[in-house]
Amino acid sequence: MKKIKETPIVILNFKTYLESTGENALKLAENCQSVAEETGVNIMVAPQHGDIYRISNELDIPVLSQHMDSIDAGGHTGSILPECVKEAGAVGTLINHSEQRLQLFDIDAVVKKTFSLGMSSVVCTNNIETSSAAATLNPDFVAIEPPELIGSGIPVSQAEPEIVEKTVELIHHINPQVRVLCGAGISTGDDLKAAIDLGSEGVLLASGIILADDSKQALLDLVSKI
Amino acid sequence: MKKIKETPIVILNFKTYLESTGENALKLAENCQSVAEETGVNIMVAPQHGDIYRISNELDIPVLSQHMDSIDAGGHTGSILPECVKEAGAVGTLINHSEQRLQLFDIDAVVKKTFSLGMSSVVCTNNIETSSAAATLNPDFVAIEPPELIGSGIPVSQAEPEIVEKTVELIHHINPQVRVLCGAGISTGDDLKAAIDLGSEGVLLASGIILADDSKQALLDLVSKI
Amino acid sequence: MKKIKETPIVILNFKTYLESTGENALKLAENCQSVAEETGVNIMVAPQHGDIYRISNELDIPVLSQHMDSIDAGGHTGSILPECVKEAGAVGTLINHSEQRLQLFDIDAVVKKTFSLGMSSVVCTNNIETSSAAATLNPDFVAIEPPELIGSGIPVSQAEPEIVEKTVELIHHINPQVRVLCGAGISTGDDLKAAIDLGSEGVLLASGIILADDSKQALLDLVSKI
Amino acid sequence: MKKIKETPIVILNFKTYLESTGENALKLAENCQSVAEETGVNIMVAPQHGDIYRISNELDIPVLSQHMDSIDAGGHTGSILPECVKEAGAVGTLINHSEQRLQLFDIDAVVKKTFSLGMSSVVCTNNIETSSAAATLNPDFVAIEPPELIGSGIPVSQAEPEIVEKTVELIHHINPQVRVLCGAGISTGDDLKAAIDLGSEGVLLASGIILADDSKQALLDLVSKI
Repeated sequence: MKKIKETPIVILNFKTYLESTGENALKLAENCQSVAEETGVNIMVAPQHGDIYRISNELDIPVLSQHMDSIDAGGHTGSILPECVKEAGAVGTLINHSEQRLQLFDIDAVVKKTFSLGMSSVVCTNNIETSSAAATLNPDFVAIEPPELIGSGIPVSQAEPEIVEKTVELIHHINPQVRVLCGAGISTGDDLKAAIDLGSEGVLLASGIILADDSKQALLDLVSKI
Repeated sequence: MKKIKETPIVILNFKTYLESTGENALKLAENCQSVAEETGVNIMVAPQHGDIYRISNELDIPVLSQHMDSIDAGGHTGSILPECVKEAGAVGTLINHSEQRLQLFDIDAVVKKTFSLGMSSVVCTNNIETSSAAATLNPDFVAIEPPELIGSGIPVSQAEPEIVEKTVELIHHINPQVRVLCGAGISTGDDLKAAIDLGSEGVLLASGIILADDSKQALLDLVSKI
Repeated sequence: MKKIKETPIVILNFKTYLESTGENALKLAENCQSVAEETGVNIMVAPQHGDIYRISNELDIPVLSQHMDSIDAGGHTGSILPECVKEAGAVGTLINHSEQRLQLFDIDAVVKKTFSLGMSSVVCTNNIETSSAAATLNPDFVAIEPPELIGSGIPVSQAEPEIVEKTVELIHHINPQVRVLCGAGISTGDDLKAAIDLGSEGVLLASGIILADDSKQALLDLVSKI
Repeated sequence: MKKIKETPIVILNFKTYLESTGENALKLAENCQSVAEETGVNIMVAPQHGDIYRISNELDIPVLSQHMDSIDAGGHTGSILPECVKEAGAVGTLINHSEQRLQLFDIDAVVKKTFSLGMSSVVCTNNIETSSAAATLNPDFVAIEPPELIGSGIPVSQAEPEIVEKTVELIHHINPQVRVLCGAGISTGDDLKAAIDLGSEGVLLASGIILADDSKQALLDLVSKI
């Protein structure tokens, strides 16, 4: 078992596929953990809310929430309370994913909530401008994902390298502490290597691994070039 | 241990209070289970999404979800997939709670989703008209909760008995199979008894029990008059 | 100039096409008025909020709003206040169009607001179940539009006649006062005739007329079979 | 009649008060125009969508929209199409008002839409962090309004001067071209003077003028100290 390095970071967003729900989510997370231990790559998983507790308690891999609501404890039936997410075992959260876009007001509030709870924050963005905006809010990570490439199989790191480079440059100008990830269309070792070469510290990905015939092998391929 | 009777039904909505989150949620659900077993009253719990798996797996009490999104499996980061809720252990769900109101389109779609998954549906409504509308969608339960009384400590069954009676009458005219619950301000044995006497089959309640100094005693009081 | 008959009713939803915005909206509404006066068919127009005042003041044709928010006067920057819509000249409003779906709570509230303002209400629905639900709220009209046929060119009155017939039957069972319209894919005289033959009192349509090379001729064709 | 100076800028948000709807909106805008002409202060009005055309056509004062939706022309029933707002006579728009908060994604898209339409953009924000984020999107104006002071009668320029100063400083560091306004609780000449002294170029205000017994006198008082 290798020591897990800090970078590159690979975040696997489980989304709401049946292939990554319940029992399947647990197995997929086990595969992520195995690959992390075998290769030393820092892999995190972002399962559905209903699966956070189970994965956190049965495995030993960092778990992120896919979303948290901008609420304080109280009467908010059906909402995702950050304190509940944390107690279920998550160490951080995606914020403003393109499939769960938030108001600017709420992105700011949820990032601040992660500060107060000691959790990590990964703000997802769709272009250079919104990435810059996100960086001013001081999250741990900004993950840029051009929406037209999500689920396309066309990797952002190869199709639009200048967007990743420009985002890294602008974000580091605004706030050097913010770390940049990129996503959309990422699935192979070349995609991840290209992302790192462009200055990002890792990737956010989903269907390329989740829907692979052999998700463990797909993960091994992903990290094979670094 | 008594046999659990079918009615009256008591649904405890855990909302997002810290007193009903994580470890506290588990303890509160244990109290609910104890009272159900001691009295034979049909108590169900509706914890947060992050706590459904834990409560379902460690206890033996019917668990409802507080909400489900009107989505099919796929790319819906951060949403509540009905199949995930079911696999985590929930046997049904609240729909359209006043703190998580849905479009008419989605209420219809989620009720149909519960049919296909073999889950129970509890559509919450705010007045006589929307209760009638909900009844046409054939859910298992309609739970009427006048919003001005929620969390007020003023029980709907005593403050506005005619609303409960009229709702029962209209719903049974539209669809005799739909069962009627009522909520808002319910906390004592008299409140529950009044609700039953007005023709409803049970109650939906939250803060009156969750925030009580001794939630088990509060539950025992609640069911003491029936 | 013919006397306008009460039925059939033709509601032209201007949506947000450039072909039905501003000066173009005025010309399109003029064409609607001409055809109504030449044929006696009851044509209403539903332009964008910014065009209601202009059309109402320069022409003599019933104007509906495309939407109204469920708000009372006060601090609601950017929202559509029913009183403003009325004062601008609208005599009624579409509610819950498939492109502007509302919560059940708000459909009920806006229908009641139209009662208090003496305006007409046209609640749009997507299937038989939601049509029944809408009918319990006592609007003037329910307009069923299967979403898969909207903008398709395939007319609901011919593609899914049983949906229209069943909707008419169920709505009249629930509330005989509610009048039924249908929409989606309607553009020709045969489509409108089929809609009437199935028991509806008229149609809601948009792109088939708005995007026609000659909108006046398209309207004349639409009403040619009745 | 004085020549209108470029600064200070006073934007009167009409919100959805009956006192600023329809005929009342026209009268209020007339008062704004009179005061602008008598004093040379740059006053703009932001009436409801239904009143934009009427005010733009009957008066000679810059009109802003209270909101525009992030949509292109097409099938968006009930939405606010930027092109319709422009053709009705608006020269710019408020964006992300605290009563009409937008997703970060949509703030960026609407600001870009104003660029392409040659309209002015006023992005409203709630604190220093979201003001910085807004500035990265290159709008013409950022208007900071601490939500706890809106409608309070407690002026931001006097209650929280450091917030205005710090916002001006940070925004000018990020993008010196972005001009800063402030709002919340503004109604008197001292409030406006304080706002200017803190480095902002004007104010956004509403109820303090709209609900005044004599709105023209209230406006004259507002601009009396500059």
